[in-house]
Amino acid sequence: MHSASKVLRVGFSRFPRVLSVAMKSTNVSSNVCSETGIGTLMMSRAPVNGLNYDFLKDFREELEKLDQDKACKAVIITSSVKNIFSAGLDIMEMVKPEPKRLRDFWLSLQDMWNVLYTYRLPTVALINGHSPAGGCLIASGCDYRVMLDKTYTIGLNETKLGIVAPFWSEASYHFQPASIPRFMDAFVALVGTRQADLHLQLGTLFTPQEALKNGLVDELASSEEEAREKSVAAISKFLAVPGFPRYMTKTSVRSQITARFVDGRDNDLETFLNFVQMPATQKTMIKYVEALKAKKPKL
Amino acid sequence: MHSASKVLRVGFSRFPRVLSVAMKSTNVSSNVCSETGIGTLMMSRAPVNGLNYDFLKDFREELEKLDQDKACKAVIITSSVKNIFSAGLDIMEMVKPEPKRLRDFWLSLQDMWNVLYTYRLPTVALINGHSPAGGCLIASGCDYRVMLDKTYTIGLNETKLGIVAPFWSEASYHFQPASIPRFMDAFVALVGTRQADLHLQLGTLFTPQEALKNGLVDELASSEEEAREKSVAAISKFLAVPGFPRYMTKTSVRSQITARFVDGRDNDLETFLNFVQMPATQKTMIKYVEALKAKKPKL
Amino acid sequence: MHSASKVLRVGFSRFPRVLSVAMKSTNVSSNVCSETGIGTLMMSRAPVNGLNYDFLKDFREELEKLDQDKACKAVIITSSVKNIFSAGLDIMEMVKPEPKRLRDFWLSLQDMWNVLYTYRLPTVALINGHSPAGGCLIASGCDYRVMLDKTYTIGLNETKLGIVAPFWSEASYHFQPASIPRFMDAFVALVGTRQADLHLQLGTLFTPQEALKNGLVDELASSEEEAREKSVAAISKFLAVPGFPRYMTKTSVRSQITARFVDGRDNDLETFLNFVQMPATQKTMIKYVEALKAKKPKL
Repeated sequence: MHSASKVLRVGFSRFPRVLSVAMKSTNVSSNVCSETGIGTLMMSRAPVNGLNYDFLKDFREELEKLDQDKACKAVIITSSVKNIFSAGLDIMEMVKPEPKRLRDFWLSLQDMWNVLYTYRLPTVALINGHSPAGGCLIASGCDYRVMLDKTYTIGLNETKLGIVAPFWSEASYHFQPASIPRFMDAFVALVGTRQADLHLQLGTLFTPQEALKNGLVDELASSEEEAREKSVAAISKFLAVPGFPRYMTKTSVRSQITARFVDGRDNDLETFLNFVQMPATQKTMIKYVEALKAKKPKL
Repeated sequence: MHSASKVLRVGFSRFPRVLSVAMKSTNVSSNVCSETGIGTLMMSRAPVNGLNYDFLKDFREELEKLDQDKACKAVIITSSVKNIFSAGLDIMEMVKPEPKRLRDFWLSLQDMWNVLYTYRLPTVALINGHSPAGGCLIASGCDYRVMLDKTYTIGLNETKLGIVAPFWSEASYHFQPASIPRFMDAFVALVGTRQADLHLQLGTLFTPQEALKNGLVDELASSEEEAREKSVAAISKFLAVPGFPRYMTKTSVRSQITARFVDGRDNDLETFLNFVQMPATQKTMIKYVEALKAKKPKL
Repeated sequence: MHSASKVLRVGFSRFPRVLSVAMKSTNVSSNVCSETGIGTLMMSRAPVNGLNYDFLKDFREELEKLDQDKACKAVIITSSVKNIFSAGLDIMEMVKPEPKRLRDFWLSLQDMWNVLYTYRLPTVALINGHSPAGGCLIASGCDYRVMLDKTYTIGLNETKLGIVAPFWSEASYHFQPASIPRFMDAFVALVGTRQADLHLQLGTLFTPQEALKNGLVDELASSEEEAREKSVAAISKFLAVPGFPRYMTKTSVRSQITARFVDGRDNDLETFLNFVQMPATQKTMIKYVEALKAKKPKL
């Protein structure tokens, strides 16, 4: 597990692009191997695959495109950015936000999650870089996780960032269990209630070995090639099962988590909007962004 | 884990008896040892203990009889059919079904499960043969599981069979989390959410060693005698505890799963009836039965 | 795991004090280390830290006092009674009870639990003695558990005591899943559903090694000093995380359990009151207390 200072460096996008010039093709792209039928969804938003509105929208649209491509039988989600799977939410979406854009941003995160977690085709996260916060969320939405056994880390480290995410806002102090979408539910399902309680509180970033031991990833690989082979091997197991009953089973096993998500998303949106626009929150985030700008990139 | 082709051979009864001549005494019988107070519920419907209406009704009635027998302190559930614990639902109940019979069949499964999962006395599954699908369900409804460490397998392999079970029907695509009885809940409780998500999707049939490692069974035994000894030893632990508080605790720990089952059973019944009677479903099953008939039995 | 007879000796307070002379200062006290900011909540009600009304009220008030003490950053909960962390509920509260007092007693348990399980500061249970029943409950309400690796045991052994606790009453036979506060939920969250099902039924008292293996405690220590060092080390990890998001995360992860508790507490209270005042229950408890009085203390 890593120190808080290290975490801060990979928790959010450090050099977010100007939002209006986001280029779809460079955010997220996909292709389908005509031989194997395996689609690859490639995250390519340098420098850290920060999740902004355009990225999330592109991510979801590429997923939907692959779903409708008859040649596509399964999807591997991975990154073309060196040493980064995804560093999570793009903080620039939340600094001095324009209200409509802020709403659209959060809706795009909810929509992406909804599509990913209940996706019809088998999904494998090939985690080839750091995967904190939203990066871990994307991985935990897949059916299987293969991680490179390098110096990368993975986890929901939001507490350590000290930037309060929506389900941690003052507003949620008076907690409304039925109404808070819980992106963390998928994480809890992977590592179990006890370890989730501990490591969500601590904001732990796991090494690959720790992630394997805790059930957060399913396999490790020593190289990108081996990771790809293991991902393909996992997919072949999924594809040995008739697709429709497999998908219905996936939906059924995940139905309680999905129901909580669906029931609570409106409330979650309002909580998020209120929280982000509080002066205290803005102050914290502006300070954070300034600190990031003062640092040299070292990843 | 085993191949889909192997799975198909043990997933359903291959030589179902003519329904109308089912003999109670040969389906399920029970006796109570006057020395130990241990009742044995014996499943004896050759060739594979296929769960048809009569079997399920007899199973439940024998359980209820043992419950009311003052001499009976605990129950071991096992099979007299060589190499088979139970191969699950009898597909003949679902092929060209008579509507009333179909309804009664599904109700008999629901009733059996309800009685088994909330049974007053301690129950041990002595798994002395293959235990796919409904066989695994019966085992997972008990308080303790001892499995013979032979070439047998156990698991909920319905996805691999490709015959869509009720909670996987098209109708449940628009999922209704509060209203779908989830026979799989007990399985999830045993192996944990992550492994359940994976192995229910894959329709994994576990070897005894894998089942032990995943928590699906509690102990292995190298012989029928050892399995019996371990079952009796487990029962003696349960009987060291006053019966009423033990039973109330069992009820309480299982109350969420039981509540979901009870709340959703009407909806589950309708979903099942609609699904089974769809032309596409009938076509799949008729083809399946014809394929089985063309094969020689090899178990 | 230990025999029922041994369990009986540590399951309830054997020499309860006269209720009306309970002295606050000797029940529960607390101090805050000015150097580290670590508060210690000391349970000191000889001979077994039996949880009676005054103890529970004092426990809660000390927790609240520490919460409001700006110098206090985290709390270690431990015992000054030799070989006993806490032996659980004081049976004298339930023998020939005065109705108002009985109600207040149960409310004080509910209130204590509510404060402990959702406590703002990090909490570590330093389990330096036997911890059956209510003792295990207190430990399971903390964020982290360090146990001395001696001949002590820990577990929810209520079934073995044969004294039916509220959620096991005849009244709860017709179970009401949404309305029964489940003190056991925190235990289930720690050890997992399967092991909870088994060990709550069996009333298992775990050795420290078994408790560690099952996730009921997080670390063992060979001496009181080492236990203290490990508790402080755990606290330093919690304190490395900004307090507010950590607390919100704790609240959120525990929200389903807390919601069930809050929703069901009125019903739980009535069930408890009805049950305890039944003649059969009184008879059992009076017999139990007489048996205890006839024994010499040997702890």
